[in-house]
Amino acid sequence: MVNLGQQLSSLIKHTPLIEDPMIINLAIKGVIDYFASSLQAKNENDIRKLLAWIDDEGGTARAWLVGQKKLASARQAALFNGFQAHCLDYDDVHSDIRGHPSAVILSALIASIKLDKPLSKIDGRRFLTAYIVGIEVMALLGKIVNPQHYEKGWHTTITLGGIAATAAICYLYDESFGYQALTLAATQASGLRLVMGTPIKFLHAGLAAQTAIQSVEWLRAGIQADKNFLDDKLGFLAVYGQGNANVDLSHWGKPWKIADPGLWFKTYCYCSAAAYIADAGQLLYQHPQFAVEQIENITIYFAPPKSDAALIYHHPLLAEQGRFSAEYILALTLLGIPLNFEQFSPIPISKDVQNLMSRIQRSYQIQLTPHCDAYNKRYVVVEIVLKTGKKISQRIDIPKGSPKNPYNQEQMISKLIRAIGDQQKAENLLNDIYKLSSGIDVYQFVTTHIYTL
Amino acid sequence: MVNLGQQLSSLIKHTPLIEDPMIINLAIKGVIDYFASSLQAKNENDIRKLLAWIDDEGGTARAWLVGQKKLASARQAALFNGFQAHCLDYDDVHSDIRGHPSAVILSALIASIKLDKPLSKIDGRRFLTAYIVGIEVMALLGKIVNPQHYEKGWHTTITLGGIAATAAICYLYDESFGYQALTLAATQASGLRLVMGTPIKFLHAGLAAQTAIQSVEWLRAGIQADKNFLDDKLGFLAVYGQGNANVDLSHWGKPWKIADPGLWFKTYCYCSAAAYIADAGQLLYQHPQFAVEQIENITIYFAPPKSDAALIYHHPLLAEQGRFSAEYILALTLLGIPLNFEQFSPIPISKDVQNLMSRIQRSYQIQLTPHCDAYNKRYVVVEIVLKTGKKISQRIDIPKGSPKNPYNQEQMISKLIRAIGDQQKAENLLNDIYKLSSGIDVYQFVTTHIYTL
Repeated sequence: MVNLGQQLSSLIKHTPLIEDPMIINLAIKGVIDYFASSLQAKNENDIRKLLAWIDDEGGTARAWLVGQKKLASARQAALFNGFQAHCLDYDDVHSDIRGHPSAVILSALIASIKLDKPLSKIDGRRFLTAYIVGIEVMALLGKIVNPQHYEKGWHTTITLGGIAATAAICYLYDESFGYQALTLAATQASGLRLVMGTPIKFLHAGLAAQTAIQSVEWLRAGIQADKNFLDDKLGFLAVYGQGNANVDLSHWGKPWKIADPGLWFKTYCYCSAAAYIADAGQLLYQHPQFAVEQIENITIYFAPPKSDAALIYHHPLLAEQGRFSAEYILALTLLGIPLNFEQFSPIPISKDVQNLMSRIQRSYQIQLTPHCDAYNKRYVVVEIVLKTGKKISQRIDIPKGSPKNPYNQEQMISKLIRAIGDQQKAENLLNDIYKLSSGIDVYQFVTTHIYTL
Repeated sequence: MVNLGQQLSSLIKHTPLIEDPMIINLAIKGVIDYFASSLQAKNENDIRKLLAWIDDEGGTARAWLVGQKKLASARQAALFNGFQAHCLDYDDVHSDIRGHPSAVILSALIASIKLDKPLSKIDGRRFLTAYIVGIEVMALLGKIVNPQHYEKGWHTTITLGGIAATAAICYLYDESFGYQALTLAATQASGLRLVMGTPIKFLHAGLAAQTAIQSVEWLRAGIQADKNFLDDKLGFLAVYGQGNANVDLSHWGKPWKIADPGLWFKTYCYCSAAAYIADAGQLLYQHPQFAVEQIENITIYFAPPKSDAALIYHHPLLAEQGRFSAEYILALTLLGIPLNFEQFSPIPISKDVQNLMSRIQRSYQIQLTPHCDAYNKRYVVVEIVLKTGKKISQRIDIPKGSPKNPYNQEQMISKLIRAIGDQQKAENLLNDIYKLSSGIDVYQFVTTHIYTL
């Protein structure tokens, strides 16, 4: 009898190369954004620390450390690339997952490419399909376990990411042990939301990518993991979720989850759950009756309840914690401070901002009809009571960057150019990313850019 | 305000060197058993596979692969040593943990010793105290989260082991970031009981040891993890257990948990939960009225209910699954088959044994008074109904090897000699293990044995 884990693994293995130009174009957008997010972060302090540790640990140099002009072991590359891609919280999000798929999946896929002893040619279309398959697995699992899994305290980027990235690598190399690899990845699934606001949140993306490399390499080495990771009593969903009763594999790729509900791209470095707040704050700042010194108090209404679970800091002290603070981001926007990287670095938050934050409270006492295109029926209303007694408010259902209100191709390309800081290099990379869809060898793609980016 | 994670970390840091000869002797016994379990396994097939993978990954050779006459990176050594020590399920158990502490903690401690660039001298007494502290942390957490944590499907050897081993390493080197290291270890805690009966169960011990090395090394590299891992809402106990309301740190080391309830040592290679069954079966086999062909049916009564959670195989097909099968072990003993390593290797189970297993059922319908020395009030009654209608039964409360019915020093030493297969080498190692308690430098201890064991 074929069990659930085997069924899923079989769906993965038998997925044909995806040729639909709309889907492929979304994958291309994901790859562009991955490089933009990674290269924007490449000189961060924490990145340098991890690089020094990798140098000290040593290992066979075979996998690309993106943007660092050097190679490392596959596990190190997965860990490093995931950390770097997620390091500024500037990478994509998926609402079924409630986490960051590409930082994990693309980091693992890139780290799996052996540059010392190239295996057979890796077709760029197969690489893009593997990426789409990874997102499919991650979103499928996310839809089953969430919102309880996330709300309980799990960080889905890592708990679901390791399994998804394992699926992607197994697809890329058409491995025969896919079913066992998913089990080996599932038993390595960990990661607490508790660490948000520290660099460990970003390391989680790297750890998940490392899990995928470990799962595949240990099975290639001959270790066995012959168990159904979707087992009803002791499997992943039983332990990390609410059981496997809701598993429905009949809609595999119909439609692909990279398209529906789709990836959410960012041009900012705070949690996407705060994007609603940022959009509302920026609009209120422009309101004709608004003046910051006139504020009596502010209420942020979240619907549905707990939809602010990611925004764990009500009273952040450090600006980097502010990435996960509705209050911090609202205060910045209402003070007219631009939401750039500087405002989210590990520095103390100023008195001005602290004062304004102290006037903000959260509420869940709101029951409006959600917008038909809103994700998970979410919306936010920010209401300001002025000293005059007058109220002004702003509602946001579909923030900028989310799939129903996306950045256009040009904005995505600007993000890449800004990250690379060199128009010509950015164009070369872009051209090659587009060539993935016509089947350029991924080995050739990587070797072209190792020493230029 | 000092939070719970900081309090625990402070207790660890300020633990004085333990000098009580009774406690030290128990630690010595643990170290002897660790080497016996590791060296017994050193030629196993799966071990060779992992060694080949390590060779391929490469890395700075600095940490001891026990019994393999070679060095590897610290992460590889932790992974390898943990896997090897637990590989035959021949290593110690602790009932508060419901898992295997020494395979994780000693593997991580040994892997932490840098042989390429020795840090300052490591006093053997400090090493033994670090080991005792590791067990203390693991049993403390185990007592809080169990039995629900284990019964839900978590494998405590790995979920609790990584945190415990991190505590041990931080103690050994008197690290200032102990509090953060516990958080970094906690967010890496994973491991499903699902994989019991596959080599991944043993790999879990290695993964936990690797987690400890990763946590300490990344903090040494300067990554920050400034969060309370015992946080009441999003911390380890909230997510993996039932919250932190039962945390009581006032009994730290009073008495040390290595002594009370103490370690359970094994001279067999199946799960200690089955030791009750093995003892009962062997006694029944000697019963004057017993004859295997006279068996009509058999009932195994477990008390309290769910105390057989570890014995997940009711109908194993492979002998290695039989390590976690009450039915398999009972059938072997009633057929007079010796319980040696051969009977638990990855081979199909014979028809004879299958037939006898099919007559065995489990029951929880029993309510006798537990023995006052029984762990967690556990006992087992095996009742055989003979074809004559007559019943014979055997009750076991305190199996051989458990702390209240321990093997003596001589039996432990025999286990070591058998594992090494060379009396002189075994005596040299034993002498040095004893010298740890008088402060021999651990660096010297390791370098003496790297190329002889």
